Amino acid sequence: MNIKGFSASAVAAGIRYAGRLDLGLIYSTIPAVTAGVFTRNQVKAAPVIIDMERLKQGRAQAILVNSGCANACTGTKGMEAALATSFLLSSSLDIPDEMVLLSSTGVIGEQLNVDAFASSMGKLVAGLDEEKFEEVARAIMTTDTVPKTVCRTVTIGGHEVNFMGMAKGAGMIMPNMATMLSFVVTDAQISFPELQESLRQAADRTFNRITVDGDTSTNDMVLVMANGTASNEWIDEENLVGRQLFQETLEGVLKELALKIISDGEGATKCITIRVCGAREEAEAEQMARTVANSSLVKTAFFGEDANWGRIIAAMGRSGVRFHPDRVDIAFDNVVLVRNGLALGKEAEAAATEILKQKNISVCIDLKDGAGCEEIYTCDFSIDYVKINADYRS
Amino acid sequence: MNIKGFSASAVAAGIRYAGRLDLGLIYSTIPAVTAGVFTRNQVKAAPVIIDMERLKQGRAQAILVNSGCANACTGTKGMEAALATSFLLSSSLDIPDEMVLLSSTGVIGEQLNVDAFASSMGKLVAGLDEEKFEEVARAIMTTDTVPKTVCRTVTIGGHEVNFMGMAKGAGMIMPNMATMLSFVVTDAQISFPELQESLRQAADRTFNRITVDGDTSTNDMVLVMANGTASNEWIDEENLVGRQLFQETLEGVLKELALKIISDGEGATKCITIRVCGAREEAEAEQMARTVANSSLVKTAFFGEDANWGRIIAAMGRSGVRFHPDRVDIAFDNVVLVRNGLALGKEAEAAATEILKQKNISVCIDLKDGAGCEEIYTCDFSIDYVKINADYRS
Repeated sequence: MNIKGFSASAVAAGIRYAGRLDLGLIYSTIPAVTAGVFTRNQVKAAPVIIDMERLKQGRAQAILVNSGCANACTGTKGMEAALATSFLLSSSLDIPDEMVLLSSTGVIGEQLNVDAFASSMGKLVAGLDEEKFEEVARAIMTTDTVPKTVCRTVTIGGHEVNFMGMAKGAGMIMPNMATMLSFVVTDAQISFPELQESLRQAADRTFNRITVDGDTSTNDMVLVMANGTASNEWIDEENLVGRQLFQETLEGVLKELALKIISDGEGATKCITIRVCGAREEAEAEQMARTVANSSLVKTAFFGEDANWGRIIAAMGRSGVRFHPDRVDIAFDNVVLVRNGLALGKEAEAAATEILKQKNISVCIDLKDGAGCEEIYTCDFSIDYVKINADYRS
Repeated sequence: MNIKGFSASAVAAGIRYAGRLDLGLIYSTIPAVTAGVFTRNQVKAAPVIIDMERLKQGRAQAILVNSGCANACTGTKGMEAALATSFLLSSSLDIPDEMVLLSSTGVIGEQLNVDAFASSMGKLVAGLDEEKFEEVARAIMTTDTVPKTVCRTVTIGGHEVNFMGMAKGAGMIMPNMATMLSFVVTDAQISFPELQESLRQAADRTFNRITVDGDTSTNDMVLVMANGTASNEWIDEENLVGRQLFQETLEGVLKELALKIISDGEGATKCITIRVCGAREEAEAEQMARTVANSSLVKTAFFGEDANWGRIIAAMGRSGVRFHPDRVDIAFDNVVLVRNGLALGKEAEAAATEILKQKNISVCIDLKDGAGCEEIYTCDFSIDYVKINADYRS
């Protein structure tokens, strides 16, 4: 798939390791309406700070992204290095410097290798091609084992509108407003306020609902570029139908990318949805679901395929949400294991243990206290998670 | 060591497994002033609920404790089972039923095997002996690899006052008011309000400062029994010197027990102190230290002996505490690795990596924003942690 007006390129620049794609470029030949959401970690990487400033204008033409170095906690020197890479690209493309957005992922606290950017920039720009979106998705991988892309087409007011999205991330994943890195391009014609609001809502209901390890990165961002070549009627505050279709499709793209991140979570063998229903309010449902989803004991039990619901209710009890333990129902998929706070016995446990052999599992917790319902997506916690993270920098 | 008036006993009752000590008794021949602190998990085990009620009178004579079953999430049946075991013991000892305190640890959600208690009670009571405190410490072990006991003697007003404490716990450890289980006996003569306040303060500064995995148990409790046989001048609100000495000694006992729990944390290879200084207030220092101490990425880096401070600062940034990243210093023991938010370079990193080979490590974080300072004690996160918890119930 390709989208008119967008091209991409990736090269092995040797930023940290030799011989692997580590520098990517997404380019729009015309200025695209562009929105972003960024990490809420107080420690923000240099490219995050630069993009937040540049996106105030709501337009961009290029995303330059590297793996191998996060350019976070690198001070003035790191900021200067980021600006230097932006200038290298804008000069090569002959576009205004402010039309370049930057993104980095990798080790925190090390300085960016600007020389690697300088010596590869010519090749990167020369390689721009409508079909290379997937290569950029490869260039941004760190502990990811697969590139993550999603394509969608929707018809808005008789015009076909296309989306291509990518994401990376496997560890340091509990995004707050965005995940590690995700880029979506679309030919939709949409106003900046609508795009920004649409992205904020979609990210909140997708990327902000996943957790691999409870750790929020310093480099998280989701960028969406809309270049308008679909020629649909402008999506703005008056085009309610178009707005709704755009929002739903974008949310679908982000949700699929978010679940791909969970599925490729560091060492993960299972994808788990924690759904809390019957809470007094949605925020409480989310808080409880997040506490259960981040419990190391719950996650290791899933890895061990052990229907140890006692760990789930213990995590619920420390979540800070008030509830009645003697009203709680817990089900794995459609197998109810606990009714009114009590185990249903050996047969139910055996059936639940069968469910745990699956790769995708839903845990449904009903508090029966109200109408608040929320889901959090997570993965299990395996021996490989520890191996990957004990060795990450070596 | 033994303390006049206290005796102990332990038997293999076969509560869950055959052939291992799993039922313990601590007995005071005279009613002892007794204080307790209990889990703040909203889901509380039956013995916790019973003890909270019984301790309103401030006196007790016996602690009956089992491993193999937590008797949590067991409903009315679990409560009746607990009361039945209390009655079995009070009848055997010929003491009022309210003088018995109960404590359980093990799997959540399974019913208590009262028959095992009934058939072992005679042997348990007959076995009471002044020297068997250590055997009870063995009987309460679950995934613990060593029993944990501490003895102390302090002179208060010319009288020797003695303490013997025990604790168990290796997983589901982030106590909130207490840890898994800990029992302390002393011959101090102390009033109930002083004992309760002394315990509350000491637990808050010791057990409530440790975390193995961020999970708070449903069965946590610390009980202290003081039988007064040291014949020291009564410790009450007027005896300030005695109160201070008692408080310090009790806190010392609990701290040593708490650190023994960390040192024996599930799969742990290292004991790590996370100290945050220079915060605007103590509560913020604690919140940040706790976030760092619970980060899976930080804990796996310690297991890998990787001086990956980027993960520490990323966890600080998501802790919810406001600070200035460009002021932060981070040191491992006396080796400063980060100054004003920036890495100090290869030499400092090499020196920090050497520190990481030790079993005991201090991480000192200075925010330079104020005078708030707090410590949290934790352990690393190893492959064995996952193995232990994937297999726990099998």
